[in-house]
Amino acid sequence: MKVHYECFTCMANQCKKIVEMATEDLEKRRNAMFLAAKAIAREYHEDAIPAIAGSKVFLELYKFLKNDDPFREYKEKSREVAKKVVSLLRNRLEIDVKTAIKLSIIGNIIDFSVGFSPEDLERQVEEMLKEDLYVDESNELTERIKEAEVILYLTDNVGEHYFDSILLEKIREISKAEIYIAGKEGPIINDVTVEDLKRDGFERFGKIISTGTRVVGVPLDEISEEFREIFEKADVIIAKGQGNFETLSEIKDERVFFLLKAKCPAVARGLGVPQGALVCKRNI
Amino acid sequence: MKVHYECFTCMANQCKKIVEMATEDLEKRRNAMFLAAKAIAREYHEDAIPAIAGSKVFLELYKFLKNDDPFREYKEKSREVAKKVVSLLRNRLEIDVKTAIKLSIIGNIIDFSVGFSPEDLERQVEEMLKEDLYVDESNELTERIKEAEVILYLTDNVGEHYFDSILLEKIREISKAEIYIAGKEGPIINDVTVEDLKRDGFERFGKIISTGTRVVGVPLDEISEEFREIFEKADVIIAKGQGNFETLSEIKDERVFFLLKAKCPAVARGLGVPQGALVCKRNI
Repeated sequence: MKVHYECFTCMANQCKKIVEMATEDLEKRRNAMFLAAKAIAREYHEDAIPAIAGSKVFLELYKFLKNDDPFREYKEKSREVAKKVVSLLRNRLEIDVKTAIKLSIIGNIIDFSVGFSPEDLERQVEEMLKEDLYVDESNELTERIKEAEVILYLTDNVGEHYFDSILLEKIREISKAEIYIAGKEGPIINDVTVEDLKRDGFERFGKIISTGTRVVGVPLDEISEEFREIFEKADVIIAKGQGNFETLSEIKDERVFFLLKAKCPAVARGLGVPQGALVCKRNI
Repeated sequence: MKVHYECFTCMANQCKKIVEMATEDLEKRRNAMFLAAKAIAREYHEDAIPAIAGSKVFLELYKFLKNDDPFREYKEKSREVAKKVVSLLRNRLEIDVKTAIKLSIIGNIIDFSVGFSPEDLERQVEEMLKEDLYVDESNELTERIKEAEVILYLTDNVGEHYFDSILLEKIREISKAEIYIAGKEGPIINDVTVEDLKRDGFERFGKIISTGTRVVGVPLDEISEEFREIFEKADVIIAKGQGNFETLSEIKDERVFFLLKAKCPAVARGLGVPQGALVCKRNI
């Protein structure tokens, strides 16, 4: 998905929050915002993909701020809250494959770019569990999972990955496939890194791999050769969240299933669904 | 006041609202935002003054959008609501000079740049009437008004000018000074133009003059010679709102009294007051 008109202010507002998290020094914040304005003007053009343009700007800002992971604390908080909520859900719900798919979609509300506050997660999850998926191709996804020999699972945000673990567990139950779980090569906003997956024992579900880049999503010009091989051999690709949608909707590849909540107007428009819709949709 | 770190996102968000008001066409909005990103990157630098930088960007956007006054409807609504509220206030309150000064400061909540909604004006005014001025140099201002031979009144936003009319009336009562009331040369965001002042009969309070530019505030490099002469000969300059503060705080001129609500964090910091404070402060 190419950038929409809203992406400029969204990137700018994310830069502001990054700068506020990274330093209290007003002069440093100001200089960082001068840099952000220039970096966005350069990256925000008609062929740009929001996840890629944003990542480039944010990484430039990290470098300027001499802070390689301004989201450390935010991610830690999201992780703790999500861990608790997922544990409650496991005790309370009868979880079949469909529910697991739905929960992994619901987990996608944990998203810095649209202003998620960890404090309110439990209530939000409860509410969304009552909602139907707006696009529901979960039966087809389940069939594909059962038949697949190789499955690639593209994670999104920290905290959300606890919701993913419910689905990954189900996938292990219903499929004999070789499973790969991809994280980012290093910190970028609140995305799951390879290190996060290792720390939380995701080897129990499959092989942990890096996309080979810190750029959000699957930026085809930036991924490693190792990741590209796995991407090419996978029979099913489960792509969580907006960044993976933004990058992969560019290639029409029917192996890809997008699982996400369409939180921002641009992505909702790109998917052809109302803003806020819960979506399990094949990329065709 | 030079730009702060928050000014980048504030300008960007204002551009987004302008584009949304000006056109429904998504492609046109997108192209306008590409232009806005570039214009802001150019105008937002360490020596920039927010009101001036913003105005230049907005006027470039108007030109691109082929819409010379995207705020027409918004201003009309603000005007109608303010007119009604001011009429209620006149019937209900005993208005002395001090109250008139306070009301003109309260009227400054009518501000597009910080997201004012006309619908809620009456309630907000009621609440603020209970508040004290955080900086109150209104006695000094009153004295200066009484002694002055020439008074220059710099207006700010449409709607707010109805609140100004209460103060202008009082000034006429307590002073024999020649009074000049300045509006902008043409439409810029929701600022009062010379045309607005004429339409609403402000000649009854004094001579209506143009700053000679559409740029917000008193941008010293852009004002007309005619305005500069009046600016120079005035004994008291009443400067309403953030734009006039941003431009005039750059010159230390004790003839200037700032009357405003410090709505944004940057202006609050520039004035050394808490955000939201009501201020009547001499420029020394």
